[in-house]
Amino acid sequence: MRNIKMILEYDGSPFFGFQSQPHHRTIQEVLEAALSQILNEKTKIQAASGRTDTGVHALHQVVNFRTNNKLSCRQLQNGLNALLPRDIAIIKLDEAPKNFHARFSARSKIYEYRIWNAPVRSPLQAKQAWHVPVKLDLKRIKKAILFLKGRFDFKAFTAAHGSAQSTIRKIYSFTIEKKGCLLVFKIEADGFLYHMVRNLIGTLVEVGKGRLNPQNIPAILASKDRKNAGPTAPAEGLTLAHVRYGKRLKRPVVLTP
Amino acid sequence: MRNIKMILEYDGSPFFGFQSQPHHRTIQEVLEAALSQILNEKTKIQAASGRTDTGVHALHQVVNFRTNNKLSCRQLQNGLNALLPRDIAIIKLDEAPKNFHARFSARSKIYEYRIWNAPVRSPLQAKQAWHVPVKLDLKRIKKAILFLKGRFDFKAFTAAHGSAQSTIRKIYSFTIEKKGCLLVFKIEADGFLYHMVRNLIGTLVEVGKGRLNPQNIPAILASKDRKNAGPTAPAEGLTLAHVRYGKRLKRPVVLTP
Repeated sequence: MRNIKMILEYDGSPFFGFQSQPHHRTIQEVLEAALSQILNEKTKIQAASGRTDTGVHALHQVVNFRTNNKLSCRQLQNGLNALLPRDIAIIKLDEAPKNFHARFSARSKIYEYRIWNAPVRSPLQAKQAWHVPVKLDLKRIKKAILFLKGRFDFKAFTAAHGSAQSTIRKIYSFTIEKKGCLLVFKIEADGFLYHMVRNLIGTLVEVGKGRLNPQNIPAILASKDRKNAGPTAPAEGLTLAHVRYGKRLKRPVVLTP
Repeated sequence: MRNIKMILEYDGSPFFGFQSQPHHRTIQEVLEAALSQILNEKTKIQAASGRTDTGVHALHQVVNFRTNNKLSCRQLQNGLNALLPRDIAIIKLDEAPKNFHARFSARSKIYEYRIWNAPVRSPLQAKQAWHVPVKLDLKRIKKAILFLKGRFDFKAFTAAHGSAQSTIRKIYSFTIEKKGCLLVFKIEADGFLYHMVRNLIGTLVEVGKGRLNPQNIPAILASKDRKNAGPTAPAEGLTLAHVRYGKRLKRPVVLTP
């Protein structure tokens, strides 16, 4: 049986997140419907990050599915792109090794979070950035980020109803770039807990506003208590920017999303 | 009477262009409704570029209006931004000299045109870029641009029903920048004819595809015949990026849009 790997880009605003759920338009549902139509058989996909919320975008989401269909990769890609709505596109489609699994084989994921930091909202950025009108102090935010890089228990930064068995994750890199009024955070980790990026960003914004000190971060981590971290930043600023595969990691990959 | 100058940003996709027209949602209509509500009197605005089409965006559109109202600039700006829908924002609002006119005082305008030049469409760029799947030859496009800079009769690049008295315009600068698959054209001129930017871009794309030679441009200009230029590029790639004011020009400003 063939194992096909696809890279997707989508605008998350008109979807109720990735994962199928009754009575809602989701990425998974729209994608599986197009696949089933082309392959003429009911088809299930596996996604690198299957639990992205309503409004979260992807520049590079990875999924795989199995099929016996004989269509070439090019035919599959073009056929799917013709069937899919404007807000989803298959950027790449390849044969993958038999044991490739979009989620379990992932070595790390990179999320991007965009903040429009200006007194007035930006209509052209509105769907892909969180508008924070109060001027943020980037020096303070950069100091706080230093305390977040590394392997920690991120329980304080995950939603109470997160289902992960372990709440330990390793953040490999965490950067912030300023482009005019736009702040772009990039965070790479071996895995992310439910709402983890949005809770980290919400907390950093509190630091940038002066309501929390960068030095508070270690205590927030140590408390493992969600109440001590900042609010959850809105979904529209969040984009799944990349998923890395490969065997360069020296320790086992944490498998929960 | 006060003369107020405002800088607007808007996402053009959900509007039927700028100018008021019956039974359609336009920027002008939405803006004048908000103004009339705040000022408690029917208010008309003048725009630097009042004829932008359906789907055209603005990062920096300039308008002015007159009023006797005593509200401060800050109160006016905040009040308007609270009333306006998410897709329009007043970025700046200032007192202007009595004789300032958003359109007639303009020295030059800068438009930006974005092309997503990749085999597959980009859902996250779709509303702000034209998807051209065929690889464009930038060297050819840059050569063609050289023939367009300067003062010319742009009749061949305007819609047949354009109403301008003179079709002579001066292009001060015309650049192209490549950011990954995104091509960003920036063009500054003393004024633009109806559909001029979109016809120039449509023609340059023909050059980039090899269907027209850069050396054909002078003959297309000289022919003054719309049929010799390329097709009209779609509106969604176009953004009014800036309007310059001031007295640095040595010759009279061309007043038609």
